[in-house]
Amino acid sequence: MTRRLKHWGWGFEDEQPSPADLRAAAEGIAAHLGFGSPEVEQPVALEEIELPQPRLSPPVELEGICSSSTYERCLHSYGRSYSDIVKAFRGRFDHPPDVVAHPSDEAELEAVLDWALNAGAAVVPFGGGTSVVGGVEARVDGRPVVTIDVKGLDRVLEVDTASMAARIQAGATGPGLEHQLAEHGLTLRHFPQSFQFSTLGGWIATRAGGHFATLYTHIDDLVESVRALTPSGWWESRRLPGSGAGVSPDRMLIGSEGILGVITEAWVRVRPRPGRRSSAAVLFDDFSSGASAVRALAQSGLHPANCRLIDALEARTTGAGDGDHAVLVIGFESADQDVEPWMSRALELSGDHGGKWQRRGDRGGTVGTWRDAFLRAPYLRDTFVAMGVLSETFETAITWDRFEAFHEAVLTSVRRAVREVCGSGSVTCRFTHVYPDGPAPYYTILAPARRGEELDQWAQIKKVASDEVIAAGGTITHHHAVGRDHRPWYDRQRPDQFAEALRAAKAALDPSGALNPGVLIDP
Amino acid sequence: MTRRLKHWGWGFEDEQPSPADLRAAAEGIAAHLGFGSPEVEQPVALEEIELPQPRLSPPVELEGICSSSTYERCLHSYGRSYSDIVKAFRGRFDHPPDVVAHPSDEAELEAVLDWALNAGAAVVPFGGGTSVVGGVEARVDGRPVVTIDVKGLDRVLEVDTASMAARIQAGATGPGLEHQLAEHGLTLRHFPQSFQFSTLGGWIATRAGGHFATLYTHIDDLVESVRALTPSGWWESRRLPGSGAGVSPDRMLIGSEGILGVITEAWVRVRPRPGRRSSAAVLFDDFSSGASAVRALAQSGLHPANCRLIDALEARTTGAGDGDHAVLVIGFESADQDVEPWMSRALELSGDHGGKWQRRGDRGGTVGTWRDAFLRAPYLRDTFVAMGVLSETFETAITWDRFEAFHEAVLTSVRRAVREVCGSGSVTCRFTHVYPDGPAPYYTILAPARRGEELDQWAQIKKVASDEVIAAGGTITHHHAVGRDHRPWYDRQRPDQFAEALRAAKAALDPSGALNPGVLIDP
Repeated sequence: MTRRLKHWGWGFEDEQPSPADLRAAAEGIAAHLGFGSPEVEQPVALEEIELPQPRLSPPVELEGICSSSTYERCLHSYGRSYSDIVKAFRGRFDHPPDVVAHPSDEAELEAVLDWALNAGAAVVPFGGGTSVVGGVEARVDGRPVVTIDVKGLDRVLEVDTASMAARIQAGATGPGLEHQLAEHGLTLRHFPQSFQFSTLGGWIATRAGGHFATLYTHIDDLVESVRALTPSGWWESRRLPGSGAGVSPDRMLIGSEGILGVITEAWVRVRPRPGRRSSAAVLFDDFSSGASAVRALAQSGLHPANCRLIDALEARTTGAGDGDHAVLVIGFESADQDVEPWMSRALELSGDHGGKWQRRGDRGGTVGTWRDAFLRAPYLRDTFVAMGVLSETFETAITWDRFEAFHEAVLTSVRRAVREVCGSGSVTCRFTHVYPDGPAPYYTILAPARRGEELDQWAQIKKVASDEVIAAGGTITHHHAVGRDHRPWYDRQRPDQFAEALRAAKAALDPSGALNPGVLIDP
Repeated sequence: MTRRLKHWGWGFEDEQPSPADLRAAAEGIAAHLGFGSPEVEQPVALEEIELPQPRLSPPVELEGICSSSTYERCLHSYGRSYSDIVKAFRGRFDHPPDVVAHPSDEAELEAVLDWALNAGAAVVPFGGGTSVVGGVEARVDGRPVVTIDVKGLDRVLEVDTASMAARIQAGATGPGLEHQLAEHGLTLRHFPQSFQFSTLGGWIATRAGGHFATLYTHIDDLVESVRALTPSGWWESRRLPGSGAGVSPDRMLIGSEGILGVITEAWVRVRPRPGRRSSAAVLFDDFSSGASAVRALAQSGLHPANCRLIDALEARTTGAGDGDHAVLVIGFESADQDVEPWMSRALELSGDHGGKWQRRGDRGGTVGTWRDAFLRAPYLRDTFVAMGVLSETFETAITWDRFEAFHEAVLTSVRRAVREVCGSGSVTCRFTHVYPDGPAPYYTILAPARRGEELDQWAQIKKVASDEVIAAGGTITHHHAVGRDHRPWYDRQRPDQFAEALRAAKAALDPSGALNPGVLIDP
């Protein structure tokens, strides 16, 4: 039997720890954090969940690839934000899709989309289902909803070793496509935190942020061409290494979050596995000095693959630091050349700003600890929910000239909100990506939750955070996308004339407004 | 008195050589090329040109910033392609704008645009007027035309030295903005061949290609935010170092070629002047070996600032080579670090593919010669027109896997066309920019023209070249834009569904279709 994903949280059903193990883990975490309860709750079992009757059913020829089972509808109800997990954990599924379709090729996708459009349904394109912004939630008034899960389109179709590019189907997950590329000695090296389950199509639709802390920060720059099915027909751009022929067609699909079409495949730039690497962890007395060093690094033209600054408290929480120092993780990698000259200069620059380092080539130590914590975090969140810990993040980007004031304003407001809403808790920060003109700060909140009130607690904190991010000049998201949850702030951020243009573009391709209604723009 | 631009060719009126000097230059060129006549023609003088009466005139409050003089109308009739120059040289101005407006601030621009729209005029946004694709030509049926020249908006408004970014008005020319940035020790380092006259707004509207042969090839990646006036109001994106909030608003304006709005300013990423540089010229026995070396370099992650491969004949013609070898010009530059380790590895890679080099740090020799020829080329073309030499270029991009076959097919077809149309002549190639997944080849044609038949001769050759570029998988333009001239091939290249979306976006912002009609899409 194939492994099934949990219908409520992160990972597979068989990865859920036993109640005893969960309690032991919760005890350890509660001792570490100073809050949270070892009295863990259990998720509402699937069998106890009752969903409303589906409002439509597929024609007989599509029955084989469609399902309205409780499991499928629950699994496709939410993404994987903290609030999503809380709701699903408690057995609350407000907007389950009526039908979940699993096409395994483009012909099946066409048939499903045709049927759904003719049936007057809304259509939600679905990849890994790891959205943290309500991007795949069928929060649609009035219409029945067909969710199209494209994970059946999961193949690497072509590999061009001369151009270092591959044609990959949109439903391929991170491990799935890397496994297929590895047969050719190649790698995409796009590792978002959701890597294990998220898909290429989802990354493109949401402008996912990946492995590279500089230069190739979003999937955007790894995309050579895109193919998508819109309600008016196929959209496929010419495969080119670069072009200046008018507005970029790809850049209109990248970040379209499922409102223009269902992405089915893309040519993406791949590379040989980097045989030469160098990593280091540099300690700073305070986050501000670390930020100065990061600015110097980002403006140096050295282009480190990793350049992630973690504040002292977050470093302590994740085991990457002692709690007294901000930690800057620097990494260089290459398949071609010795990277030591680059690392030497990067450490010199860090030293200029007060950084101290003990080790080089530190893959098992601080750097490895940080990476492990990064990949473990989504699993840990299920435990947090069970033990009554509020755990969520928000992220943004801001230019350097405004960073200090921005960071101060955000921390002050959000810490106050956390205190008021939860009594205590922490707000920590790291830079996930960095540009010559500014960093992408990523804030993590850990706080005691009141069971049953988590959604309201987080909504209050999120509102304060988002208001402050927008007021202080940031973006409502650097790489988590807009979805439905970020709409109030996104609407204040994006140019009105651009929204007019995008709305018209959508109406031209999707006249009935069927595709992912509520995301990005209203009709 | 301020210097006036030539109404028909490149540069200022006072830069036009005397008839005797021109004849002497033509003699030398004819001897070098083996064709062309020292019996130079003279351009039709401005006084001899008669234009049709303007079909509209501005209201009294705009008279001070509007002109319908023959000079202004001629100067704004064409871009600076070979065909443009031939027509203007011969005194042929088929589609002069009726009024040329010169706003010097946004309020004046708003007033001009309001008036033009209310008067039912078409509006052509105009920067340096160096388009080589008919992008600024008022080739509009039926409606009167107001050309809005934005070169009065020419200031660097803000410099943010922390983020290394500057807010610059769209009408600032290359030298104009570099001069203002130099006061802060900064530079944009975007040097298209048109640098002397073209403007930031024009670069953004056309996705211009600049100095950097790798990484930051187009202006696109140097843009932080854009402000533009559309017929429905102002479009201004939030200034951010990076964002993943939906479809990029900037990427919808970048490359919009004046059909969505008039760009008035942008925040762009600047940098300190690079104090450390290293250049080298590497010789290859054939272009194909050179291309292999370029591919290795482009895939190495070294990111050379210069990486331009010139075929043997073009190297000879421009004085950069002996005619027996393809020449690869490699350059590294940095404001931060020693670039010698990078150059050493680049030369090693070149050597692996048969490259030979004699000198390092070769700024005065081959590299300097090439750069001088690059900047002199647009001036030279005026002389070519006068002496009956057909001189034009076309450019594209193609992935590596298809490059050899593509290049062979293009050269074969275009050489045959040149022979058939002109009797003799040369077709040469260089790479202007290069990506990990493919090069941007740039082809130059020099051939004997039959006086009076140049337009038809070039049209025949251009058709063959464009048909072949599209059939063989390339883009109709890598950095020259689409304009009006590339439309038949662009229409075959871009996805139909994308064109639908763009058409709808334009209609939403510009319901009367006033802005630059005929460019990119039809209503």
